[in-house]
Amino acid sequence: MAKPLITTAKAGTTRRGRPPRERAGEVEDRILQAALQVFIDRGYEGASIDEIAEVASAGKPSIYARFTNKETLFREVVLRWAQRSGEMVGSATSGSILERFQSAGVLIVQRAIRAETIGLVRSVIGEATRHPDLATTIHYAMRAHGTATSMKLVAELAEAEELRSLPAFAPANIEATTRYFIDLVLLPMLISSLFHADLAPIKAQMEDHAREAASFFLRGCGYSAV
Amino acid sequence: MAKPLITTAKAGTTRRGRPPRERAGEVEDRILQAALQVFIDRGYEGASIDEIAEVASAGKPSIYARFTNKETLFREVVLRWAQRSGEMVGSATSGSILERFQSAGVLIVQRAIRAETIGLVRSVIGEATRHPDLATTIHYAMRAHGTATSMKLVAELAEAEELRSLPAFAPANIEATTRYFIDLVLLPMLISSLFHADLAPIKAQMEDHAREAASFFLRGCGYSAV
Repeated sequence: MAKPLITTAKAGTTRRGRPPRERAGEVEDRILQAALQVFIDRGYEGASIDEIAEVASAGKPSIYARFTNKETLFREVVLRWAQRSGEMVGSATSGSILERFQSAGVLIVQRAIRAETIGLVRSVIGEATRHPDLATTIHYAMRAHGTATSMKLVAELAEAEELRSLPAFAPANIEATTRYFIDLVLLPMLISSLFHADLAPIKAQMEDHAREAASFFLRGCGYSAV
Repeated sequence: MAKPLITTAKAGTTRRGRPPRERAGEVEDRILQAALQVFIDRGYEGASIDEIAEVASAGKPSIYARFTNKETLFREVVLRWAQRSGEMVGSATSGSILERFQSAGVLIVQRAIRAETIGLVRSVIGEATRHPDLATTIHYAMRAHGTATSMKLVAELAEAEELRSLPAFAPANIEATTRYFIDLVLLPMLISSLFHADLAPIKAQMEDHAREAASFFLRGCGYSAV
């Protein structure tokens, strides 16, 4: 097999050939971005390395030099996506306790329910029997990322004086408590989104749903002023 | 086009030909049963009317005489499946309030998380962008069936003396309350199942999960003895 052009070319002053160290991640970024697009458009099974190479303006060898096969590339695309979705800005720390949890809920739903993420998740689920390891890995990774990020938000809000003494928000319980928040706020909207090609009606319910779910959640946590 | 054999044959005493009135549903049942199997094995896109006809030992004309096209047939298969899953036996009415809700939760999860149902749901989700109307219709129908059935269980348990006075179980609120029960008990297990080809590990967590979720649910309903 011919060695990938991009790793054998001498470092030069032109844009072609091996990139200087500061641009080392550029080709990888371009491949991952192109792969994301092709996976969303075609689904996992329908996507080809040929098309990804074309969209990325990269040679197939430079893809295979970085990713062993389509499965590895897909896994990387989804994990990177989950990680980026996890980078949240802080949520509201003013307003009533209910309002703060509502705004955290809206933030979590907004980050998860995007056309790209839902498209990828649909594709993984649709292929779960053909690619069981891939589906399982991606599920655990997305759930871990999602829980970790949401936990930061919940822990921040839990520092409010009204909540600090509740067992639900004690360090030992905060992870389980966060899972209940996700189950109530995110999962119903996630399930709906998986079935609905047009996400606009789902997004329109987001605020009302987050408010009601946050209210039930706070009562479950033993906060009685809601 | 030749007229479908089965509708032109004279009613007779043999098993072939038009069935007598009391067996009128038999062919339809056989077609729906075969279609369910083929849709589970091949997914929506991969299933063909040819294969369904073969598995059902029926002619294609007798399928088309009952179902306009593959989409109509699939819709009927899924709706019938959802309806059957909805036929629940009564749950525990003895034991502590928590135990009763736990057993109702296990029942709901057991009915939803079956290889066939999950296989069908995966297939619908995987095809949601190609068949948006189909996916939306099936989602609403499954959700309506699921809520109605679970509501019966929750309403039955809500008659316990300890719960009767709680606003969460008042007639006007029981539907919303049931949704929270579903969100906490069923949805996390449903999402996991969609990603996991092997459902055994998911089913193994069912009882513990139902107990914990039921406990949080009851606190959310204002029942403080959990």
